[in-house]
Amino acid sequence: MIRLSASTPDFAEAFAALVDDRRESAADVSRDVAVIIADVRRRGAEAVRDLTHRLDGHDLDQSGWRIDPADCAAAYEALEPGLRTALDLAAARIRAYHERQRPADSDYTDAAGVRLGARWTPVDAAGLYVPGGRAAYPSSLLMNAIPAKVAGVGRLAMVTPTPNGRINHLVLAAAHLAGVDEVWRIGGAQGVAALAHGAGDLLPVDVVTGPGNAWVAEAKRQLYGVVGIDMVAGPSEIVVVADAKNDPEWIAADLLSQAEHDTVTQSILFTDDAAFADAVTAAVDRQLATLATGTVARAAWDTNGAVIVVDRLADACPLIDRLAPEHLQLAVDDPQSLFDRVRHAGSVFLGRHTPEAIGDYVAGPNHVLPTGRRARFASGLSVLDFMKRTSFLGLDETALAELGPATVALAEAEGLPAHARSVALRLRLNR
Amino acid sequence: MIRLSASTPDFAEAFAALVDDRRESAADVSRDVAVIIADVRRRGAEAVRDLTHRLDGHDLDQSGWRIDPADCAAAYEALEPGLRTALDLAAARIRAYHERQRPADSDYTDAAGVRLGARWTPVDAAGLYVPGGRAAYPSSLLMNAIPAKVAGVGRLAMVTPTPNGRINHLVLAAAHLAGVDEVWRIGGAQGVAALAHGAGDLLPVDVVTGPGNAWVAEAKRQLYGVVGIDMVAGPSEIVVVADAKNDPEWIAADLLSQAEHDTVTQSILFTDDAAFADAVTAAVDRQLATLATGTVARAAWDTNGAVIVVDRLADACPLIDRLAPEHLQLAVDDPQSLFDRVRHAGSVFLGRHTPEAIGDYVAGPNHVLPTGRRARFASGLSVLDFMKRTSFLGLDETALAELGPATVALAEAEGLPAHARSVALRLRLNR
Repeated sequence: MIRLSASTPDFAEAFAALVDDRRESAADVSRDVAVIIADVRRRGAEAVRDLTHRLDGHDLDQSGWRIDPADCAAAYEALEPGLRTALDLAAARIRAYHERQRPADSDYTDAAGVRLGARWTPVDAAGLYVPGGRAAYPSSLLMNAIPAKVAGVGRLAMVTPTPNGRINHLVLAAAHLAGVDEVWRIGGAQGVAALAHGAGDLLPVDVVTGPGNAWVAEAKRQLYGVVGIDMVAGPSEIVVVADAKNDPEWIAADLLSQAEHDTVTQSILFTDDAAFADAVTAAVDRQLATLATGTVARAAWDTNGAVIVVDRLADACPLIDRLAPEHLQLAVDDPQSLFDRVRHAGSVFLGRHTPEAIGDYVAGPNHVLPTGRRARFASGLSVLDFMKRTSFLGLDETALAELGPATVALAEAEGLPAHARSVALRLRLNR
Repeated sequence: MIRLSASTPDFAEAFAALVDDRRESAADVSRDVAVIIADVRRRGAEAVRDLTHRLDGHDLDQSGWRIDPADCAAAYEALEPGLRTALDLAAARIRAYHERQRPADSDYTDAAGVRLGARWTPVDAAGLYVPGGRAAYPSSLLMNAIPAKVAGVGRLAMVTPTPNGRINHLVLAAAHLAGVDEVWRIGGAQGVAALAHGAGDLLPVDVVTGPGNAWVAEAKRQLYGVVGIDMVAGPSEIVVVADAKNDPEWIAADLLSQAEHDTVTQSILFTDDAAFADAVTAAVDRQLATLATGTVARAAWDTNGAVIVVDRLADACPLIDRLAPEHLQLAVDDPQSLFDRVRHAGSVFLGRHTPEAIGDYVAGPNHVLPTGRRARFASGLSVLDFMKRTSFLGLDETALAELGPATVALAEAEGLPAHARSVALRLRLNR
């Protein structure tokens, strides 16, 4: 953990180093991934079977390529009732929030008599990557699958590795609840490649979303353009802005809720009170001692944690914009006044009773958010990631007479005579 | 040109081949581009100067790194009046169309007392690539720059190669009209890298858009994630659906307006009348003979052109969805009935008096559109490409009491105890 004070002379340099620290894996897996994608593209199901046998240790022809929807339904029914209620609440609230994201079509005729507009339609099929092992979160599945379904996607195919045949029943339950149409026991770069290019009975999809390891992320990157993808994801981060009126234990828990995800995650506290900063730091140490995820969280906090003392909390806002954090928690009495000064953040959590964890599960907004300063230009996952817009226009003879001559002039200036001719012929100009 | 008839037994196979034909460059420039990007990232302005000297044949320190805004204004003032009026009309109509794309923010409180919403903000800075040489189109500049300005982007930096010092005055005039803030004489992959990472006085931007050659396209691809990009662009295409009531000359000109762009572009005609197909084909041949761009257009038409005769025009719709064309022209009396049946197209041109060229210049919708079947999942360039969405939520004690327990249950099920604790502490649960 580093501790900075905005009033010290070396602050600018130290803060710049914090901003530049991308914490992203240097491992170059691009070559391995390119080989896997080419293999799946060429040999289809055969390549997927071979790769799964080698990497996940099971034979798809024996263990089955797909998980039966009935198994997903059974996993859901078998949930402990409290957990099932919680998952139901999460799904309902995520659905309600995303339903408001459905974009409006437009269709109007302007003063020149030109009909203009845009029509939004869902993609035909979406693919969802769900990691195996520790990072197989049912909440993540809901956050990816529900926006696709709200968008109106007809076919949602999920791939997930089942190393040595192991299946995560909580994930299957979430797949049932979210309405996933197909569940395939394929993981890694080969899973993404199979979604993009198809493999055997797995037909190609149009968009691939979902988290994954370095191989999965690189496969999505390489296949961007063959399919749409959600984003390039990196290590997660949280910025908490808190004054001294907060309970230090609450804020410590908030910082640790990010740190426990992974050793490369980053938790940053901005406060205007040095004694409060000390109290939070002490609380972090105390809580780490009793946290089941303490080893990971301590490594993340020690390596990437930061506590920054500023003169006034408003001074934090331009610094926050440079970090463009994935999560921004404003634990103050008047969070809106700070929110109004911040331009770049993935998701903002307003007030002392809005810990970031609420947004991870049940609040409704998507928890798939831009990381690593990408909130400067990127947005969280939404219904729009599963839709596309078709623009349209229609002119009658009169409207063409009005817009045609300018088109002819510009087309000729650009050296595109067939463009000019396609208009001139209709205007009965002699060209 | 291939001629297909939907009623022949080999049609399915021949059409599938047409769909699969991506026409994209096989040239692998990824290694060269990676070297250039790494060099610009490491050596900044020095690398850009060296690369420009080597590839564009001029010394930036002598010729000047930037083009003075006064030179752009002068180029605009010097335009032939008819051309200036045409450019003004185009800019005004493009602006009007894109102003309707500005997304609405949301901010509401739901039944649980949770404040929820999303706020859209522009990126701080956008970079615009403008090719040199033949493909330096002022219309393209307007189509890229105006949405950025409508989005509210404060700084719009353009890079463009000026090989051997040559400058395209029409492009400068358009830059002035569109409100481009900075014009840099840098091209190629080094131009894109300089926009993304910064180089000397050129500060980094957040989003890079604009067309370019294979090096430029690959640089955007590799820098996707460091900055936002518009899309992976490929060769252009048009599908025209026309019945026998059209003038074959008009339709031939429409097909050629696509073909004249590049030898890899594709023009496809669907018609329900074989004699009309013959007439259009003959008209294409006639027009090619007098077209200044005839060599390029003929190569494109001969290699990639297609004429497909279907029994009824409605039969073309599912075939069009498989092609997901960039441009779709519906030259029939009732274009809406066909449009209603098509799901995947970048932009649609309705009726006999709406040649695609109108949309290239003055109609208003963007002419930067998804190519190579990407309309299945991608949209044309819009104001949204220069904005990002920040979601937010705010709970008070009562709302947290309602949503908290479900969050704790899910966090514990996912093995994330600090998440659970951050909520439990606030609920004063003993955990």
